[in-house]
Amino acid sequence: MNKADVVILGGLSGITAGISCRRHYPDKKVVIIRKEGTVLIPCGIPYIFGTVGGPENNVVPDGLLESNGIELIKDEAIKVDRAAKVVYMKDNEPIAYDKLVFATGSLPVVPPIPGISKGNVFPVKKDFAYLKDVLKCMETVKDVVIIGGGFIGMEFADECRKGRNINVTVVEMLDRCLMMAMDDEYCDEAEKKLTDTGVKILTGERVASIEGGNNVESVKLASGKELKADLVILGIGAVPNSTLAADAGLELGFRKGIKVDHNLRTMTDPDIFACGDCCTKESFFDGRPSPVMLASVATSEARIAGANLFSSYMSFCGVISVFATIIDDRAFGVAGMTERGAKEKGLAIVVTTADAADTHPGGMPNSTMLKVKLIFAAETGTIIGGAVSGGKSTGELVNVIAACILHKMCVDDIVAFQMGTHPALTSSPIAYPIVNAACKAVLQLRKR
Amino acid sequence: MNKADVVILGGLSGITAGISCRRHYPDKKVVIIRKEGTVLIPCGIPYIFGTVGGPENNVVPDGLLESNGIELIKDEAIKVDRAAKVVYMKDNEPIAYDKLVFATGSLPVVPPIPGISKGNVFPVKKDFAYLKDVLKCMETVKDVVIIGGGFIGMEFADECRKGRNINVTVVEMLDRCLMMAMDDEYCDEAEKKLTDTGVKILTGERVASIEGGNNVESVKLASGKELKADLVILGIGAVPNSTLAADAGLELGFRKGIKVDHNLRTMTDPDIFACGDCCTKESFFDGRPSPVMLASVATSEARIAGANLFSSYMSFCGVISVFATIIDDRAFGVAGMTERGAKEKGLAIVVTTADAADTHPGGMPNSTMLKVKLIFAAETGTIIGGAVSGGKSTGELVNVIAACILHKMCVDDIVAFQMGTHPALTSSPIAYPIVNAACKAVLQLRKR
Repeated sequence: MNKADVVILGGLSGITAGISCRRHYPDKKVVIIRKEGTVLIPCGIPYIFGTVGGPENNVVPDGLLESNGIELIKDEAIKVDRAAKVVYMKDNEPIAYDKLVFATGSLPVVPPIPGISKGNVFPVKKDFAYLKDVLKCMETVKDVVIIGGGFIGMEFADECRKGRNINVTVVEMLDRCLMMAMDDEYCDEAEKKLTDTGVKILTGERVASIEGGNNVESVKLASGKELKADLVILGIGAVPNSTLAADAGLELGFRKGIKVDHNLRTMTDPDIFACGDCCTKESFFDGRPSPVMLASVATSEARIAGANLFSSYMSFCGVISVFATIIDDRAFGVAGMTERGAKEKGLAIVVTTADAADTHPGGMPNSTMLKVKLIFAAETGTIIGGAVSGGKSTGELVNVIAACILHKMCVDDIVAFQMGTHPALTSSPIAYPIVNAACKAVLQLRKR
Repeated sequence: MNKADVVILGGLSGITAGISCRRHYPDKKVVIIRKEGTVLIPCGIPYIFGTVGGPENNVVPDGLLESNGIELIKDEAIKVDRAAKVVYMKDNEPIAYDKLVFATGSLPVVPPIPGISKGNVFPVKKDFAYLKDVLKCMETVKDVVIIGGGFIGMEFADECRKGRNINVTVVEMLDRCLMMAMDDEYCDEAEKKLTDTGVKILTGERVASIEGGNNVESVKLASGKELKADLVILGIGAVPNSTLAADAGLELGFRKGIKVDHNLRTMTDPDIFACGDCCTKESFFDGRPSPVMLASVATSEARIAGANLFSSYMSFCGVISVFATIIDDRAFGVAGMTERGAKEKGLAIVVTTADAADTHPGGMPNSTMLKVKLIFAAETGTIIGGAVSGGKSTGELVNVIAACILHKMCVDDIVAFQMGTHPALTSSPIAYPIVNAACKAVLQLRKR
């Protein structure tokens, strides 16, 4: 029987776990099994429909596998025999393993709405050929309805409308789009940015049914409204792809994720690890189960899982959750808790904001106003969250906040933060908004 | 006699100290004394000569003073009587103080080169009218020689050549430009970027004399070369402006900076503080005197000084030194130690590099390759330095590294760093170069 030291099942985090394993254990034979010919960059999927131009421009290069000495079997794993330590595949001979990694990702949620299985209704699957078909379909339609105003929905809407003369409508159940991720004022700003491009947004609206013949023709809302639609994108979330793991007798946890410890080892089998969307996560802040699914978390976990397969010890500290997106030309980012999230937990917090141009002087070309908000635990002064909207530096600025949160920096550490500044690249040293928001927080903390 | 609770002498860090003081002590009367009508954004000065178009577009708005309830006296402080706690000015009545802050900045080094005082030879002074004159002069000349290839010199060279049909030459004494700030490979990249725009660079060359009549006509080098020049910029560094403090009997330290403790209080007088370029600094890493002069450090110190004037306690942890610059379209940043600097100290270090596109997929518009280098202490795995070259995200990316250094993160913390990623804003989660450089470092640390 074929045998590998390490067998990995899955896509992006599988590749990352494989690379990590080979770096730590260059003598081990590592095999990745996946049915997809190519792995898509998950966060790039909405961009296939606009900026990037097609799925072929959004793939994780398989050269990464070759250059890291990882073998790829393009096949579907159909059974894991844990007692025999063997993985069975659809087309290939079974393969024995010493260590096994589940990196099987997530599957889009498909709600039981009447008509959901009509033609041209597309859940967002991370599948090359499938997305190629969606893209092709997109070229012939006039009325696109996107169900779900989270990151995926908003990004799809913004990309679909680019270079196409079509009507795009986002339908969101909650009061605001992006409400699970960002505080109200940032949601409002993002919604405005999107509607300014001509996209329609309907919030507080529930989809009642999808109407039409074989193909979708309209979307009926519970409020009675009916939206013309010849293409529907479903962006309402994803669930762990854990069926194979469950069938193998591995314990599942929150939302049916494969239950893992802080070392990314499954609770059930010491020789089996899991990483990425398919496994359970805990919050950095309170250790409670976290529903967050992020490629950046998946790759962090994968690096740790790959390292821990044999002798190494690395631990994952729990998810702080760091997001970034861009709507038209305005970027948004969140690290850690939102103000809403902290208040829902009943935490005593201090919230401060600071605005600043992202260059200095503000008159530099392409200067954009940054809006920063920081959230501190009132009793200790520890930073627990932050949000940014602004230009393209938003992406890394929110990572500066993430570094502060991960290391539990206190407000006075951030007041004295030593940042590099440059006229063309950052806010001025006098206005640097993370620092200025911290300065304000010191005073509020003192007043308490 | 006039009296203020707090008198502050100086420019940018003076404003910052004043704002910080007023935030912490809203009842205190704060007066800033400075002879300059307007305060220039110091890091923006080279950009006056190109991108920004003039000194009037590069000022710290005085509205900041008004909105923070700070009084401004435009005059020159000429004497401090510490016994009487009074500041004397050139034109105004003396003013008594309870607390005094020196924020008098730095003055450009003017080396004793023969001919240095000829017309059209300009040290870089932070003075509005003076720089307006330099700019006017720049419009009529053909051959500009810049003495000194540090940040100021390189930025001046890059800006002077923009939109002007003139010859620009940088003369640097050391083997490479920017050598005091960056490692060789980044210096080489920056030099190439600049020479690609048509600027000439002469390294390992010392200026012997400045020739001409009343005005400069050429620059003679010790090697015998002679460079035609009708305008010379001196960018070879600055020294603390501490004469007034010395005259008042305050102890000076390294390079004649006003000697301060970690609270930014002068060693000599408990009621006198100093911040910014005029005072001594210590290295974060070893507590030794640091020659670094950065606006971002000055404002950090000023915030702390302003807070500490009365009851608050804040401490400055020493300078890690974080820089960023941009040459043509390529940005460069350094946080903490360079490889060269660490080796000169005889430290056992592990150095790793990682490259990645700053978007993902790399085919996104305006994608640029990032080059990242990290430096870890070999015995402990603590990060002590990092460098980046890339696009505009470099400015904040180097601040992510700064946050890691300030909190003494270990290599495994950085491997598991939770960054936000987004196709248009950052590298992909699989390629994020700070994390990948840390992954490589883990292995090198293990091998030792």
